[in-house]
Amino acid sequence: MRPDPVDDATLALLLEVAGTPKPGNVDRHRDLDDLRFEAFLGGAVGAREGLELAADGETTIGRAFERGVAGMAARAGTNTQFGCLLLLVPLVRATVAGEGTDDGLAPAAVDRVTRGATVDDAVAFYGAFEHVDVAVGDPPAADADLDVRRGSDAAPALRERGATLRDVMALSADPPESAGSGDSDNVPDRNAQEWVEGFPRTFRAAEWIRSDEGPLADRAARAFLGLLAAEPDTLVAANHGPETAREVSERAAAILGGDRPISGGIDADAVHTADLDAAEELADAFVEEGINPGTTADLTCAALYVALRRGAEVAP
Amino acid sequence: MRPDPVDDATLALLLEVAGTPKPGNVDRHRDLDDLRFEAFLGGAVGAREGLELAADGETTIGRAFERGVAGMAARAGTNTQFGCLLLLVPLVRATVAGEGTDDGLAPAAVDRVTRGATVDDAVAFYGAFEHVDVAVGDPPAADADLDVRRGSDAAPALRERGATLRDVMALSADPPESAGSGDSDNVPDRNAQEWVEGFPRTFRAAEWIRSDEGPLADRAARAFLGLLAAEPDTLVAANHGPETAREVSERAAAILGGDRPISGGIDADAVHTADLDAAEELADAFVEEGINPGTTADLTCAALYVALRRGAEVAP
Repeated sequence: MRPDPVDDATLALLLEVAGTPKPGNVDRHRDLDDLRFEAFLGGAVGAREGLELAADGETTIGRAFERGVAGMAARAGTNTQFGCLLLLVPLVRATVAGEGTDDGLAPAAVDRVTRGATVDDAVAFYGAFEHVDVAVGDPPAADADLDVRRGSDAAPALRERGATLRDVMALSADPPESAGSGDSDNVPDRNAQEWVEGFPRTFRAAEWIRSDEGPLADRAARAFLGLLAAEPDTLVAANHGPETAREVSERAAAILGGDRPISGGIDADAVHTADLDAAEELADAFVEEGINPGTTADLTCAALYVALRRGAEVAP
Repeated sequence: MRPDPVDDATLALLLEVAGTPKPGNVDRHRDLDDLRFEAFLGGAVGAREGLELAADGETTIGRAFERGVAGMAARAGTNTQFGCLLLLVPLVRATVAGEGTDDGLAPAAVDRVTRGATVDDAVAFYGAFEHVDVAVGDPPAADADLDVRRGSDAAPALRERGATLRDVMALSADPPESAGSGDSDNVPDRNAQEWVEGFPRTFRAAEWIRSDEGPLADRAARAFLGLLAAEPDTLVAANHGPETAREVSERAAAILGGDRPISGGIDADAVHTADLDAAEELADAFVEEGINPGTTADLTCAALYVALRRGAEVAP
């Protein structure tokens, strides 16, 4: 019998935070000043009801996400894995929709789920921001009425524009001000890009994890480095600007490939041979510098979920 | 709304393994050679179905326990928290039975649950041993037909004797050979004692945790030391003999009370002022010596569950 998708999603949340070193993030060996490992355990348990709603096929995914965030925040007392849930909810829904088909959990299946999102889903998504503080950049002036920090106050604007949750994600995935300028805080939101592009980063990193060897938490740590090296992190850009975000990715890329620094791009081999000792030093440095690549952690969690669905298992 | 008992039980499993240092056990900062932290995360997720059966009020507790162990072992690929589940299942059942009453989760309520256990529960309990390897001592010769390692083969003997699960626990709680001899491997099984005595260690340590301050994982680590200091650990006795188990408890007692070593016995104050730095050294020493006080970890998990039911929360 295939494991329950909700159990796999919960385990992905737990393995994400346990994977170490995940430079700049809370992990098995590091707390941040205002965010402890145990809060993540509570948050993962508290998110359960929302994940179950995502799996039930009747509740809208926006509502499932909002319940997940509310339960997470109630247990954790803070925001632990908001972005992880934003990716897990459509993945869980696609898993259940694909059961019994040849399709299974494929990019096309997730894309159908996000294309089915409605204006009500967008309203529920905005409502989720009322449960937690999430660091985000300013929206373009033309979209100020859709600033997520407005929470439920944005509902009339969403309904007037007829903006679905996918439409909202498309705005964040390709913010007008960032196009070509290179110096705006509005770098593309990787999670939003996943939503509108069929989760390419998630499925790619899931293959890195699945084809890797050793404990799953170590594989997750290496996949995190690969994801961070591949593209600047959204949260780092929001907090420190896009230039710092690019430098952070270069520092991650430098420890892929082990003794043979990567030259031909980031592939599974480069990820599998990442130097985790060097990553430990990077982790200490990022914590010292206040660098928190949280969006890359979200992608790692989503990749863990897909890897679990495709047969990856924890090591005894 | 009060949290779901199943969620609290899951969080107790996770906080138990996260609490550090828990000398001699897998914890947030230590793996054992053949047992990894991530296996515990998998085991806690896998145990969910059994815990839900414990909460549903219809399934027998023996069957709920067996399902919990089977799910844990399937996910973890090994035995991670067998003893924790043995304590959590009746606690969860008592929680649900006590809802809406003044009684709530009290020792008397748990005692009613264990007194209601049947011969079928005993048979299911023996069946659980077929899913995992559990270190146990030899039973007295007169009870060789009830050796748990016989698994389901013991069913006819259980039925012939009319032995309920509580009867089986009573045998382990007060093994004849150990009475007064002091050198048998058959020291009392603390988990079995909880079952027949109304969970006194669990409720006592729950109060230590509830009245303590700081992150819950640290409070769990201090409660672990208090429990270990109070009584020799069953698993240590089974693996290394009762004399070593007594020495291990003395070493734990020596780090309670901080700068003022305890004299008048182990109370909440002694536990709350345990020297966790000294416990780190003890943790390294126990791992080196192959000392694994696993039964004390089980009691810590049960105490965490009761503390969560009584309002303890993870720190953000």
